[in-house]
Amino acid sequence: MKKGLLIVVSAPSGCGKGTILKQILKDQKYYYSVSVTTRQPRHGEIDGVHYHFMQEAKFEELISQNAFLEYAKYCDHYYGSLLAPIETNLAAGKHVILEIEVKGAMQIRKLRPEAKFIFIAPPSIDILRKRLEGRGTEDAETIEKRVRQAEEELAYQNQYDYCIINDILEHAISDFQMIVRAEELRTQSENL
Amino acid sequence: MKKGLLIVVSAPSGCGKGTILKQILKDQKYYYSVSVTTRQPRHGEIDGVHYHFMQEAKFEELISQNAFLEYAKYCDHYYGSLLAPIETNLAAGKHVILEIEVKGAMQIRKLRPEAKFIFIAPPSIDILRKRLEGRGTEDAETIEKRVRQAEEELAYQNQYDYCIINDILEHAISDFQMIVRAEELRTQSENL
Repeated sequence: MKKGLLIVVSAPSGCGKGTILKQILKDQKYYYSVSVTTRQPRHGEIDGVHYHFMQEAKFEELISQNAFLEYAKYCDHYYGSLLAPIETNLAAGKHVILEIEVKGAMQIRKLRPEAKFIFIAPPSIDILRKRLEGRGTEDAETIEKRVRQAEEELAYQNQYDYCIINDILEHAISDFQMIVRAEELRTQSENL
Repeated sequence: MKKGLLIVVSAPSGCGKGTILKQILKDQKYYYSVSVTTRQPRHGEIDGVHYHFMQEAKFEELISQNAFLEYAKYCDHYYGSLLAPIETNLAAGKHVILEIEVKGAMQIRKLRPEAKFIFIAPPSIDILRKRLEGRGTEDAETIEKRVRQAEEELAYQNQYDYCIINDILEHAISDFQMIVRAEELRTQSENL
Protein backbone atom coordinates (compact mmCIF):
# COMPACT_ATOMS: atom_id res chain seq x y z
CA MET A 1 0.00 0.00 0.00
CA LYS A 2 1.40 3.34 -1.07
CA LYS A 3 1.46 5.87 1.79
CA GLY A 4 -0.94 8.77 1.57
CA LEU A 5 0.11 12.41 1.33
CA LEU A 6 0.25 14.72 4.31
CA ILE A 7 -1.44 17.90 3.06
CA VAL A 8 -1.24 21.08 5.09
CA VAL A 9 -3.81 23.73 4.19
CA SER A 10 -3.82 27.32 5.42
CA ALA A 11 -5.89 30.31 4.47
CA PRO A 12 -6.84 33.63 5.98
CA SER A 13 -10.35 33.76 7.41
CA GLY A 14 -12.91 34.49 4.70
CA CYS A 15 -11.05 32.80 1.83
CA GLY A 16 -13.56 29.98 1.50
CA LYS A 17 -11.22 27.29 2.80
CA GLY A 18 -14.06 25.59 4.69
CA THR A 19 -16.28 25.40 1.60
CA ILE A 20 -13.46 24.06 -0.54
CA LEU A 21 -12.44 21.41 2.01
CA LYS A 22 -16.06 20.31 2.54
CA GLN A 23 -16.24 19.50 -1.16
CA ILE A 24 -12.80 17.87 -1.25
CA LEU A 25 -13.54 15.68 1.78
CA LYS A 26 -16.50 14.03 0.01
CA ASP A 27 -13.84 11.89 -1.63
CA GLN A 28 -13.06 8.93 0.63
CA LYS A 29 -9.38 9.07 -0.29
CA TYR A 30 -8.98 11.92 2.20
CA TYR A 31 -8.88 11.91 5.98
CA TYR A 32 -9.44 15.18 7.81
CA SER A 33 -7.28 15.57 10.88
CA VAL A 34 -9.50 17.05 13.60
CA SER A 35 -7.54 19.35 15.92
CA VAL A 36 -7.53 18.99 19.68
CA THR A 37 -8.16 22.10 21.79
CA THR A 38 -8.53 23.03 25.41
CA ARG A 39 -10.83 25.98 24.70
CA GLN A 40 -14.57 25.78 25.30
CA PRO A 41 -16.82 24.71 22.40
CA ARG A 42 -18.50 27.64 20.65
CA HIS A 43 -22.14 27.61 19.64
CA GLY A 44 -22.76 24.88 17.07
CA GLU A 45 -19.35 23.22 17.43
CA ILE A 46 -19.50 19.46 17.75
CA ASP A 47 -16.87 17.48 19.66
CA GLY A 48 -14.98 15.21 17.26
CA VAL A 49 -16.16 17.12 14.19
CA HIS A 50 -14.91 20.69 14.57
CA TYR A 51 -12.45 19.91 17.35
CA HIS A 52 -11.69 17.31 19.94
CA PHE A 53 -12.33 19.25 23.14
CA MET A 54 -10.02 18.31 25.97
CA GLN A 55 -9.05 19.33 29.52
CA GLU A 56 -5.75 21.15 29.88
CA ALA A 57 -4.25 18.52 32.21
CA LYS A 58 -4.94 15.78 29.68
CA PHE A 59 -3.51 17.90 26.85
CA GLU A 60 -0.30 18.50 28.80
CA GLU A 61 -0.02 14.81 29.58
CA LEU A 62 -0.20 14.10 25.82
CA ILE A 63 2.47 16.76 25.20
CA SER A 64 4.76 14.97 27.66
CA GLN A 65 4.13 11.73 25.76
CA ASN A 66 5.08 13.37 22.42
CA ALA A 67 1.63 12.55 21.14
CA PHE A 68 1.33 15.69 18.97
CA LEU A 69 2.68 16.33 15.50
CA GLU A 70 2.41 20.02 16.36
CA TYR A 71 0.77 22.09 19.05
CA ALA A 72 0.69 25.70 20.11
CA LYS A 73 -0.91 27.92 22.72
CA TYR A 74 -3.06 30.86 21.59
CA CYS A 75 -4.92 33.16 23.97
CA ASP A 76 -4.29 30.75 26.87
CA HIS A 77 -5.68 27.73 25.04
CA TYR A 78 -3.84 24.79 23.52
CA TYR A 79 -4.41 23.62 19.97
CA GLY A 80 -2.73 20.56 18.53
CA SER A 81 -2.77 17.71 16.01
CA LEU A 82 -2.47 14.18 17.37
CA LEU A 83 0.15 12.10 15.61
CA ALA A 84 -1.39 8.61 15.92
CA PRO A 85 -4.51 9.03 13.73
CA ILE A 86 -2.43 10.91 11.16
CA GLU A 87 0.14 8.11 10.90
CA THR A 88 -2.52 5.40 10.83
CA ASN A 89 -4.38 7.04 7.97
CA LEU A 90 -1.23 7.83 5.98
CA ALA A 91 -0.15 4.19 6.34
CA ALA A 92 -3.60 3.12 5.10
CA GLY A 93 -2.97 5.17 1.94
CA LYS A 94 -5.28 8.06 2.82
CA HIS A 95 -4.31 11.65 2.14
CA VAL A 96 -4.41 13.41 5.49
CA ILE A 97 -5.57 17.02 5.46
CA LEU A 98 -4.30 19.24 8.22
CA GLU A 99 -6.11 22.58 8.34
CA ILE A 100 -3.83 24.80 10.31
CA GLU A 101 -2.72 28.41 10.65
CA VAL A 102 0.54 29.63 9.17
CA LYS A 103 2.79 29.30 12.21
CA GLY A 104 1.75 25.73 12.90
CA ALA A 105 2.25 25.02 9.20
CA MET A 106 5.81 26.36 9.36
CA GLN A 107 6.51 24.04 12.33
CA ILE A 108 5.35 21.07 10.26
CA ARG A 109 7.42 22.19 7.30
CA LYS A 110 10.53 21.66 9.39
CA LEU A 111 9.38 18.39 10.95
CA ARG A 112 7.86 16.84 7.83
CA PRO A 113 9.55 18.16 4.71
CA GLU A 114 7.69 15.56 2.63
CA ALA A 115 4.34 17.17 3.48
CA LYS A 116 2.61 19.25 0.78
CA PHE A 117 1.68 22.80 1.68
CA ILE A 118 -1.28 24.51 0.05
CA PHE A 119 -2.19 28.12 0.70
CA ILE A 120 -5.62 29.43 -0.26
CA ALA A 121 -5.66 33.16 -0.96
CA PRO A 122 -8.38 35.67 -1.80
CA PRO A 123 -8.23 37.35 -5.23
CA SER A 124 -7.36 40.57 -3.37
CA ILE A 125 -7.53 42.12 0.08
CA ASP A 126 -10.40 44.35 -1.08
CA ILE A 127 -12.42 41.34 -2.20
CA LEU A 128 -11.67 39.62 1.11
CA ARG A 129 -12.95 42.66 3.00
CA LYS A 130 -16.12 42.74 0.90
CA ARG A 131 -16.71 39.02 1.51
CA LEU A 132 -16.33 39.45 5.27
CA GLU A 133 -18.69 42.44 5.19
CA GLY A 134 -21.13 40.45 3.06
CA ARG A 135 -21.42 37.78 5.76
CA GLY A 136 -22.98 40.41 7.99
CA THR A 137 -21.94 38.49 11.09
CA GLU A 138 -19.06 40.68 12.27
CA ASP A 139 -18.80 44.32 13.22
CA ALA A 140 -16.49 46.75 11.41
CA GLU A 141 -13.76 46.48 14.03
CA THR A 142 -13.67 42.67 13.88
CA ILE A 143 -13.57 42.80 10.08
CA GLU A 144 -10.62 45.21 10.14
CA LYS A 145 -8.83 42.94 12.58
CA ARG A 146 -9.39 39.94 10.30
CA VAL A 147 -8.25 41.87 7.25
CA ARG A 148 -5.04 42.91 8.99
CA GLN A 149 -4.48 39.32 10.10
CA ALA A 150 -5.10 38.13 6.55
CA GLU A 151 -2.42 40.52 5.28
CA GLU A 152 0.03 39.08 7.79
CA GLU A 153 -0.83 35.53 6.77
CA LEU A 154 -0.59 36.31 3.05
CA ALA A 155 3.05 37.21 3.62
CA TYR A 156 3.66 33.49 4.25
CA GLN A 157 2.16 32.20 1.01
CA ASN A 158 5.52 31.79 -0.71
CA GLN A 159 6.56 29.41 2.05
CA TYR A 160 3.88 27.02 0.76
CA ASP A 161 4.32 24.68 -2.20
CA TYR A 162 1.14 25.82 -3.91
CA CYS A 163 -1.12 28.83 -3.82
CA ILE A 164 -4.74 28.61 -4.97
CA ILE A 165 -6.54 31.90 -5.57
CA ASN A 166 -10.16 31.35 -4.60
CA ASP A 167 -11.83 33.55 -7.18
CA ILE A 168 -14.36 31.10 -8.62
CA LEU A 169 -15.14 28.36 -6.10
CA GLU A 170 -15.42 25.50 -8.64
CA HIS A 171 -12.02 26.40 -10.07
CA ALA A 172 -10.46 26.51 -6.62
CA ILE A 173 -11.86 23.05 -5.84
CA SER A 174 -10.61 21.62 -9.11
CA ASP A 175 -7.21 23.28 -8.61
CA PHE A 176 -6.99 21.54 -5.24
CA GLN A 177 -7.86 18.19 -6.82
CA MET A 178 -5.31 18.70 -9.60
CA ILE A 179 -2.54 19.49 -7.14
CA VAL A 180 -3.26 16.29 -5.24
CA ARG A 181 -3.44 14.22 -8.43
CA ALA A 182 -0.13 15.68 -9.63
CA GLU A 183 1.43 14.83 -6.28
CA GLU A 184 0.12 11.27 -6.61
CA LEU A 185 1.99 11.05 -9.92
CA ARG A 186 5.25 12.25 -8.42
CA THR A 187 8.21 9.93 -8.45
CA GLN A 188 10.76 9.86 -5.64
CA SER A 189 13.12 12.06 -7.66
CA GLU A 190 12.90 15.10 -5.42
CA ASN A 191 14.50 13.13 -2.61
CA LEU A 192 17.51 12.10 -4.70
CA MET B 1 3.96 38.19 -18.00
CA LYS B 2 4.68 35.04 -16.00
CA LYS B 3 7.25 32.79 -17.71
CA GLY B 4 6.01 29.49 -19.10
CA LEU B 5 7.16 26.10 -17.87
CA LEU B 6 9.83 24.08 -19.59
CA ILE B 7 8.35 20.57 -19.74
CA VAL B 8 10.53 17.64 -20.72
CA VAL B 9 8.65 14.51 -21.79
CA SER B 10 10.16 11.08 -22.35
CA ALA B 11 8.62 7.71 -23.00
CA PRO B 12 9.69 4.41 -24.47
CA SER B 13 8.44 3.78 -27.99
CA GLY B 14 4.89 2.40 -27.97
CA CYS B 15 3.73 4.17 -24.79
CA GLY B 16 1.34 6.48 -26.63
CA LYS B 17 3.38 9.62 -26.01
CA GLY B 18 2.60 10.95 -29.49
CA THR B 19 -1.15 10.51 -29.05
CA ILE B 20 -1.09 12.16 -25.62
CA LEU B 21 0.97 15.13 -26.82
CA LYS B 22 -1.21 15.61 -29.92
CA GLN B 23 -4.19 16.11 -27.60
CA ILE B 24 -2.27 18.30 -25.15
CA LEU B 25 -0.93 20.55 -27.92
CA LYS B 26 -4.44 21.50 -29.03
CA ASP B 27 -4.27 23.95 -26.13
CA GLN B 28 -2.61 27.17 -27.30
CA LYS B 29 -0.85 27.60 -23.97
CA TYR B 30 1.72 25.05 -25.15
CA TYR B 31 4.56 25.35 -27.64
CA TYR B 32 6.10 22.19 -29.03
CA SER B 33 9.86 22.41 -29.49
CA VAL B 34 10.64 20.77 -32.84
CA SER B 35 14.02 19.02 -32.78
CA VAL B 36 16.72 19.65 -35.33
CA THR B 37 18.39 16.66 -36.97
CA THR B 38 20.97 15.92 -39.64
CA ARG B 39 19.44 12.58 -40.60
CA GLN B 40 17.38 12.17 -43.74
CA PRO B 41 13.60 12.61 -43.51
CA ARG B 42 11.72 9.32 -43.34
CA HIS B 43 8.59 8.65 -45.33
CA GLY B 44 5.83 11.04 -44.28
CA GLU B 45 8.04 13.27 -42.13
CA ILE B 46 7.53 16.98 -42.74
CA ASP B 47 10.32 19.52 -42.27
CA GLY B 48 9.41 21.90 -39.45
CA VAL B 49 6.71 19.59 -38.10
CA HIS B 50 8.43 16.33 -37.14
CA TYR B 51 11.94 17.72 -37.28
CA HIS B 52 13.90 20.60 -38.68
CA PHE B 53 16.14 18.81 -41.16
CA MET B 54 19.59 20.35 -41.48
CA GLN B 55 22.98 19.78 -43.09
CA GLU B 56 25.74 18.59 -40.78
CA ALA B 57 27.97 21.62 -41.45
CA LYS B 58 25.18 24.00 -40.47
CA PHE B 59 24.43 21.94 -37.34
CA GLU B 60 28.07 22.07 -36.27
CA GLU B 61 28.18 25.80 -36.87
CA LEU B 62 25.20 26.18 -34.52
CA ILE B 63 26.95 24.00 -31.94
CA SER B 64 29.96 26.34 -32.07
CA GLN B 65 27.59 29.27 -31.50
CA ASN B 66 26.05 27.57 -28.40
CA ALA B 67 22.70 27.68 -30.14
CA PHE B 68 21.47 24.39 -28.64
CA LEU B 69 19.92 23.75 -25.25
CA GLU B 70 21.01 20.13 -25.73
CA TYR B 71 22.25 18.02 -28.60
CA ALA B 72 23.56 14.52 -29.10
CA LYS B 73 24.82 12.25 -31.84
CA TYR B 74 23.09 8.91 -32.43
CA CYS B 75 23.99 6.50 -35.24
CA ASP B 76 26.13 9.18 -36.90
CA HIS B 77 23.35 11.79 -36.92
CA TYR B 78 22.97 14.87 -34.78
CA TYR B 79 19.77 15.67 -32.88
CA GLY B 80 19.29 18.86 -30.92
CA SER B 81 16.94 21.48 -29.47
CA LEU B 82 17.54 25.09 -30.44
CA LEU B 83 17.61 27.46 -27.50
CA ALA B 84 16.21 30.64 -29.12
CA PRO B 85 12.63 29.52 -29.90
CA ILE B 86 12.44 27.85 -26.48
CA GLU B 87 13.46 31.03 -24.65
CA THR B 88 11.18 33.23 -26.76
CA ASN B 89 8.14 31.09 -26.06
CA LEU B 90 8.89 30.70 -22.35
CA ALA B 91 9.23 34.49 -22.08
CA ALA B 92 5.87 34.85 -23.86
CA GLY B 93 4.31 32.73 -21.09
CA LYS B 94 3.94 29.54 -23.15
CA HIS B 95 4.71 26.14 -21.71
CA VAL B 96 7.41 24.65 -23.91
CA ILE B 97 7.25 20.90 -24.45
CA LEU B 98 10.48 19.13 -25.22
CA GLU B 99 9.97 15.54 -26.36
CA ILE B 100 13.30 13.91 -25.85
CA GLU B 101 14.92 10.58 -25.00
CA VAL B 102 16.18 9.84 -21.51
CA LYS B 103 19.82 10.78 -21.94
CA GLY B 104 19.03 14.18 -23.43
CA ALA B 105 16.53 14.67 -20.62
CA MET B 106 19.21 13.99 -18.02
CA GLN B 107 21.44 16.61 -19.70
CA ILE B 108 18.64 19.17 -19.39
CA ARG B 109 18.04 18.18 -15.78
CA LYS B 110 21.52 19.43 -14.95
CA LEU B 111 21.34 22.55 -17.12
CA ARG B 112 17.80 23.57 -16.24
CA PRO B 113 16.86 22.34 -12.78
CA GLU B 114 13.65 24.42 -12.94
CA ALA B 115 12.34 22.31 -15.85
CA LYS B 116 9.59 19.77 -15.13
CA PHE B 117 10.25 16.19 -16.14
CA ILE B 118 7.41 13.87 -17.07
CA PHE B 119 7.91 10.22 -17.91
CA ILE B 120 5.17 8.27 -19.66
CA ALA B 121 5.28 4.56 -18.92
CA PRO B 122 3.33 1.55 -20.17
CA PRO B 123 1.19 -0.34 -17.61
CA SER B 124 3.69 -3.20 -17.97
CA ILE B 125 6.37 -4.50 -20.32
CA ASP B 126 4.03 -7.28 -21.45
CA ILE B 127 1.36 -4.76 -22.41
CA LEU B 128 3.97 -2.68 -24.24
CA ARG B 129 5.06 -5.75 -26.21
CA LYS B 130 1.43 -6.54 -27.12
CA ARG B 131 0.87 -2.93 -28.26
CA LEU B 132 3.95 -3.02 -30.48
CA GLU B 133 2.85 -6.40 -31.92
CA GLY B 134 -0.66 -5.01 -32.44
CA ARG B 135 0.68 -2.26 -34.69
CA GLY B 136 1.73 -4.97 -37.14
CA THR B 137 4.38 -2.66 -38.62
CA GLU B 138 7.51 -4.21 -37.13
CA ASP B 139 9.02 -7.68 -37.27
CA ALA B 140 9.62 -9.78 -34.14
CA GLU B 141 13.29 -8.84 -33.93
CA THR B 142 12.58 -5.07 -34.07
CA ILE B 143 9.88 -5.48 -31.44
CA GLU B 144 12.26 -7.33 -29.11
CA LYS B 145 14.84 -4.58 -29.63
CA ARG B 146 12.29 -1.91 -28.77
CA VAL B 147 11.11 -3.84 -25.70
CA ARG B 148 14.69 -4.16 -24.44
CA GLN B 149 15.26 -0.46 -25.06
CA ALA B 150 12.03 0.33 -23.21
CA GLU B 151 13.26 -1.65 -20.21
CA GLU B 152 16.47 0.37 -20.21
CA GLU B 153 14.54 3.64 -20.43
CA LEU B 154 12.09 2.63 -17.68
CA ALA B 155 15.07 2.43 -15.33
CA TYR B 156 15.28 6.22 -15.61
CA GLN B 157 11.71 6.99 -14.62
CA ASN B 158 12.58 7.83 -11.03
CA GLN B 159 14.89 10.58 -12.30
CA TYR B 160 11.78 12.34 -13.58
CA ASP B 161 9.47 14.50 -11.44
CA TYR B 162 6.32 12.70 -12.52
CA CYS B 163 5.43 9.37 -14.01
CA ILE B 164 2.17 8.87 -15.89
CA ILE B 165 1.11 5.27 -16.54
CA ASN B 166 -0.65 5.26 -19.89
CA ASP B 167 -3.25 2.60 -19.23
CA ILE B 168 -6.39 4.47 -20.29
CA LEU B 169 -5.55 7.23 -22.78
CA GLU B 170 -8.08 9.79 -21.49
CA HIS B 171 -6.75 9.38 -17.96
CA ALA B 172 -3.18 9.81 -19.13
CA ILE B 173 -4.12 13.03 -20.96
CA SER B 174 -5.94 14.40 -17.94
CA ASP B 175 -3.05 13.39 -15.66
CA PHE B 176 -0.73 15.40 -17.91
CA GLN B 177 -3.05 18.42 -17.74
CA MET B 178 -3.32 18.15 -13.95
CA ILE B 179 0.45 18.04 -13.53
CA VAL B 180 0.81 21.21 -15.58
CA ARG B 181 -2.01 22.97 -13.71
CA ALA B 182 -0.45 22.01 -10.38
CA GLU B 183 2.89 23.37 -11.55
CA GLU B 184 1.15 26.61 -12.57
CA LEU B 185 -0.08 26.90 -8.97
CA ARG B 186 3.38 26.39 -7.50
CA THR B 187 4.91 29.18 -5.50
CA GLN B 188 8.62 29.89 -5.50
CA SER B 189 9.06 27.99 -2.25
CA GLU B 190 11.10 25.13 -3.69
CA ASN B 191 13.85 27.57 -4.59
CA LEU B 192 14.13 28.93 -1.06
